[in-house]
Amino acid sequence: MIDFCLVGAGFIGPVHAANLSAHPRARLAWVVDLNVAAGMALAAQHDAHATSDLGEALADPNVRAVIICTPPRTHTPIIEAAARAGKAIFCEKPIDLDMTKVDACGVALAQTRVPFCVGFNRRFDPTHRALHDAIRAGEIGRPEMLVLSSRDPEISPPDYVAAMPYGIFYDTMIHDFDMVRWLLADEPVEIYARTACMLNDKENPHRDPDTAMVVLRMAGGTLVHVNSSFRAVYGYDQRIEAFGEKGMLISGNQQATTLERHGKHGIRRDPLLYFFIDRYAESYRRELDAFVQAVEAGTAPAIGFDDGRRALMIAEAGVQSAKSGMPVTLTN
Amino acid sequence: MIDFCLVGAGFIGPVHAANLSAHPRARLAWVVDLNVAAGMALAAQHDAHATSDLGEALADPNVRAVIICTPPRTHTPIIEAAARAGKAIFCEKPIDLDMTKVDACGVALAQTRVPFCVGFNRRFDPTHRALHDAIRAGEIGRPEMLVLSSRDPEISPPDYVAAMPYGIFYDTMIHDFDMVRWLLADEPVEIYARTACMLNDKENPHRDPDTAMVVLRMAGGTLVHVNSSFRAVYGYDQRIEAFGEKGMLISGNQQATTLERHGKHGIRRDPLLYFFIDRYAESYRRELDAFVQAVEAGTAPAIGFDDGRRALMIAEAGVQSAKSGMPVTLTN
Amino acid sequence: MIDFCLVGAGFIGPVHAANLSAHPRARLAWVVDLNVAAGMALAAQHDAHATSDLGEALADPNVRAVIICTPPRTHTPIIEAAARAGKAIFCEKPIDLDMTKVDACGVALAQTRVPFCVGFNRRFDPTHRALHDAIRAGEIGRPEMLVLSSRDPEISPPDYVAAMPYGIFYDTMIHDFDMVRWLLADEPVEIYARTACMLNDKENPHRDPDTAMVVLRMAGGTLVHVNSSFRAVYGYDQRIEAFGEKGMLISGNQQATTLERHGKHGIRRDPLLYFFIDRYAESYRRELDAFVQAVEAGTAPAIGFDDGRRALMIAEAGVQSAKSGMPVTLTN
Amino acid sequence: MIDFCLVGAGFIGPVHAANLSAHPRARLAWVVDLNVAAGMALAAQHDAHATSDLGEALADPNVRAVIICTPPRTHTPIIEAAARAGKAIFCEKPIDLDMTKVDACGVALAQTRVPFCVGFNRRFDPTHRALHDAIRAGEIGRPEMLVLSSRDPEISPPDYVAAMPYGIFYDTMIHDFDMVRWLLADEPVEIYARTACMLNDKENPHRDPDTAMVVLRMAGGTLVHVNSSFRAVYGYDQRIEAFGEKGMLISGNQQATTLERHGKHGIRRDPLLYFFIDRYAESYRRELDAFVQAVEAGTAPAIGFDDGRRALMIAEAGVQSAKSGMPVTLTN
Repeated sequence: MIDFCLVGAGFIGPVHAANLSAHPRARLAWVVDLNVAAGMALAAQHDAHATSDLGEALADPNVRAVIICTPPRTHTPIIEAAARAGKAIFCEKPIDLDMTKVDACGVALAQTRVPFCVGFNRRFDPTHRALHDAIRAGEIGRPEMLVLSSRDPEISPPDYVAAMPYGIFYDTMIHDFDMVRWLLADEPVEIYARTACMLNDKENPHRDPDTAMVVLRMAGGTLVHVNSSFRAVYGYDQRIEAFGEKGMLISGNQQATTLERHGKHGIRRDPLLYFFIDRYAESYRRELDAFVQAVEAGTAPAIGFDDGRRALMIAEAGVQSAKSGMPVTLTN
Repeated sequence: MIDFCLVGAGFIGPVHAANLSAHPRARLAWVVDLNVAAGMALAAQHDAHATSDLGEALADPNVRAVIICTPPRTHTPIIEAAARAGKAIFCEKPIDLDMTKVDACGVALAQTRVPFCVGFNRRFDPTHRALHDAIRAGEIGRPEMLVLSSRDPEISPPDYVAAMPYGIFYDTMIHDFDMVRWLLADEPVEIYARTACMLNDKENPHRDPDTAMVVLRMAGGTLVHVNSSFRAVYGYDQRIEAFGEKGMLISGNQQATTLERHGKHGIRRDPLLYFFIDRYAESYRRELDAFVQAVEAGTAPAIGFDDGRRALMIAEAGVQSAKSGMPVTLTN
Repeated sequence: MIDFCLVGAGFIGPVHAANLSAHPRARLAWVVDLNVAAGMALAAQHDAHATSDLGEALADPNVRAVIICTPPRTHTPIIEAAARAGKAIFCEKPIDLDMTKVDACGVALAQTRVPFCVGFNRRFDPTHRALHDAIRAGEIGRPEMLVLSSRDPEISPPDYVAAMPYGIFYDTMIHDFDMVRWLLADEPVEIYARTACMLNDKENPHRDPDTAMVVLRMAGGTLVHVNSSFRAVYGYDQRIEAFGEKGMLISGNQQATTLERHGKHGIRRDPLLYFFIDRYAESYRRELDAFVQAVEAGTAPAIGFDDGRRALMIAEAGVQSAKSGMPVTLTN
Repeated sequence: MIDFCLVGAGFIGPVHAANLSAHPRARLAWVVDLNVAAGMALAAQHDAHATSDLGEALADPNVRAVIICTPPRTHTPIIEAAARAGKAIFCEKPIDLDMTKVDACGVALAQTRVPFCVGFNRRFDPTHRALHDAIRAGEIGRPEMLVLSSRDPEISPPDYVAAMPYGIFYDTMIHDFDMVRWLLADEPVEIYARTACMLNDKENPHRDPDTAMVVLRMAGGTLVHVNSSFRAVYGYDQRIEAFGEKGMLISGNQQATTLERHGKHGIRRDPLLYFFIDRYAESYRRELDAFVQAVEAGTAPAIGFDDGRRALMIAEAGVQSAKSGMPVTLTN
């Protein structure tokens, strides 16, 4: 049984807490949140301790692992503290929004050698994974084009948007950039991005990009397109299409039921699942299970610090291209 | 170029007339109809002669083939006249509603040896045919169950219904009975049928069955289900499912476009094609082309007199079962 | 927290045990099995007690509910014992294979007034339930026809088949008979069934029917078709189609992923889920949760004793029809 | 009855010839081809005259319309000759590869005022048109993103490629550029393109781009992505996806049948139609019918000279971007 300390009782924290509780070999021991009430409420649901003092939780010798669900700009100090305490670390993406901080954190982390995993949960979605495995098994031969549709049904609340400008790159497409690297086992050499503000002033008061199209060129030659929006009114639209010399693979969307309704005006099926937590429920479970297994086995988690760093680097270059209107070269 | 005489300018006549005109090696020479105006109108569209006197058209030595599209009870005398005149004959189904007349007609026809074809057009539908070919090629091994859905969007007009009681057997499911024989290359040994009147008195004033379920047992053991209705408000529903020891084949429905509309309330595609003439447009073209080819080549048409007779025999037994509520044994 | 005693550590027992353990307000306290090793193994996985003596477990005053997963012919004495002990009862279907025993059990049970639920899990499948809700909400108006495909990928082992002849009725289609009653809120008045042995002597040594087609007439007029097979090599095939005066609803099959593979030879998607435990994983979770809620609230479980009895009665009449070849009238 | 002169008996010529012959109010009167044998062969099939002298055919006063199917670089002189002869003109795309020639031709044409139509047949595909109509009717509100997949199963023969470098822009994506303009009723202001050579030296000896990704920004703000390939081994892949503030529309691919094959290894449907002539058979028929109707009515054909010119302008800018690696601004 592995005891966990969860830092950040907000948005995604409860998802991880519930998955921990349902896991046969993991347990939520501590919830850390500066918002004491929020931390206590979540802790109470899972028979865990609550504290606003990270140090207190890290001092518990039974705690073997930390899950970091706080806002991105707070990640690196928590990572460093947890690493110094010798805990295995699971950190939500992005590691941070500032590459300098990320690099410093990476150095600190490397010295401790604690297990570290970034929460790119989409790698654990069964259909995306089946697509990955088919590509890697050579089913479509050399991948020639990749097309990713990555669309949220709604924009985040204004204060969340204000705290992370160009969040469509740093928060949303960063998932796709990770998927591209993982699916192709390759790195991009160039990125071109165009963005737009399609939502009105009330929906998007900060006029932060809510719509984006990206083209990536990979070192191995594959051309990649990613498109993203914060207004997919029809649901959380998450598709990946891999085109290669021997065929095409499509990872499609998910619906709540398979019901088909035939009427005078056509055939209607369920809308797409609307919330990312519903759409990726299974991948959240599986990523946590994989992390538990890695901690148990003492092996490196599937998605390392460098993966988090590289996805951020692509996001950063994408923002630069969107701002300049010019393609940006990526180097390592 | 083969000159045709078309008898019956009503419902399905214009479909065959248009297909004849578009065929590179066939020509509509005569339209025969007791309704002079209707015959002349159709003839005029296709630069053909019109007459109400079948004998006049049959006397034209250039006419090599006759297409019979009149009401079922008029078929046998026309078949016999055309056969005596030595013309190749394409006759709409059913051959007649009275087995005694059919048998007498069969004897007369056999003496002349003219080519004869029954218009079971569904055999020429590309998807049904692909299903047929897959079964016959052994793709699903021994066929164990067959399920046919055969539903019209509307009931026929009252006078049409009055002229052909139990038309759901004689006019609609007779197609399915032919499909079953053709798909399985086997004959039924027993039929059980249950019917209902679901439409209201205004829609179905004669209280003729408008809904039916049938179970057939084939000589080779396959179990077959057919269901039929005259109220598929969502369109002309025509599916066939073949289940066997190695898998299942499904011949699905047809829609006008592949457009998919994603909205808040779900994903909507086009309704099914509504009119049987749209749904089976391609099969009407192909059955006529096959008949033209058979006449040209002097070979027997694909669907002979005995096929028409046997499908009628099954329909008759089905009606008997529906009336008695008991299964009926079929013999040959 | 509700403590459960699970009786029968075999086939479906472990599914319920795992769902109990994952449930936030239920706990597996006892596993009862005559096979001591099996009982202990399952109990050990869930920190429960094991015994071969049902009385010992029922004597535990903390136990509030019993789940019965033993072979059908052993159900009624266990139900009666649990009822006498005042425990809430969840019993797998069928209640028994012998209507006399079922009726006697029903009398005994009625005297105790303990909550009782039959495990017709399919009622809890999200898509079947969406279909149910749409019918009951009048979306297709009056239901005119119902078509259920209910096919297992494999036949049960020979000893299981030997213990329950005509299991295709008593064990498989009994689910469909329950669905028909639930979906239509109506009772059948007549059943006609035809069966066949399609598997070979090695696969089906007892020559018990492995293929079946059924037609039901409901009191309200709806015509119903059920077809079933123990050889759906392509996976666990579970579809329901409801046809009514305003449209059609189809509850379709389930697959592991949505991956679509485009190649020279066509477009391939995943096969259907193969095991019923995978296909109905969600419905097993939901039926247990509903039972827990009913026990907590002191309300009657969703699927009562009479539901179990009536489904069995239909199965029995179906067997009688299959044996005689004649339709059988159902009375209440 | 409108008499046509068809110029160019090669690739697409026979398609138009067959559609003319099947049209109830059009007739193929002349086939003009420098390759006398090819011209005579096609003419013979349709009872038309053959000549290698365009002037001879244009001198026929019965000829009211000309269809130009010759290689692109020969189009403008033929257009000008036909225009001088006062014939209505239907010209395959692209009008030419050289904008200077196109502009000169446009001037000449404008002076004659003969009806002129460019063969952007995709506008007449029923599904693409349904998507167009839905956008224009406001079904998705303001269009925010458009994604077009435009993939051929094979590259053209080497000599064809040599005659038209960057044919993936001039010959293939020019269709998509036209579709974008038509679907959005808007013009692009910027284009970015990246290309690759994925085929091997034997398949693509001239190392002409066989793979491309394009991003367009429209004057109205819509972001557009087009991807294209000459190696869709799974068939002719032609999809359009329109995303807007109220939903998404997808115009999907086409298959020969709806047959679904269920086996142990999955569910298989037909591959996509492989040849563009099969995929767009209906749109070729409809574009010709629309042209015939326009000539009959004396109205302007649906797709004018300026449409041809603008699509070419976008293709040209795309090639410039592909060569420079920089986005290119489009002006009118």
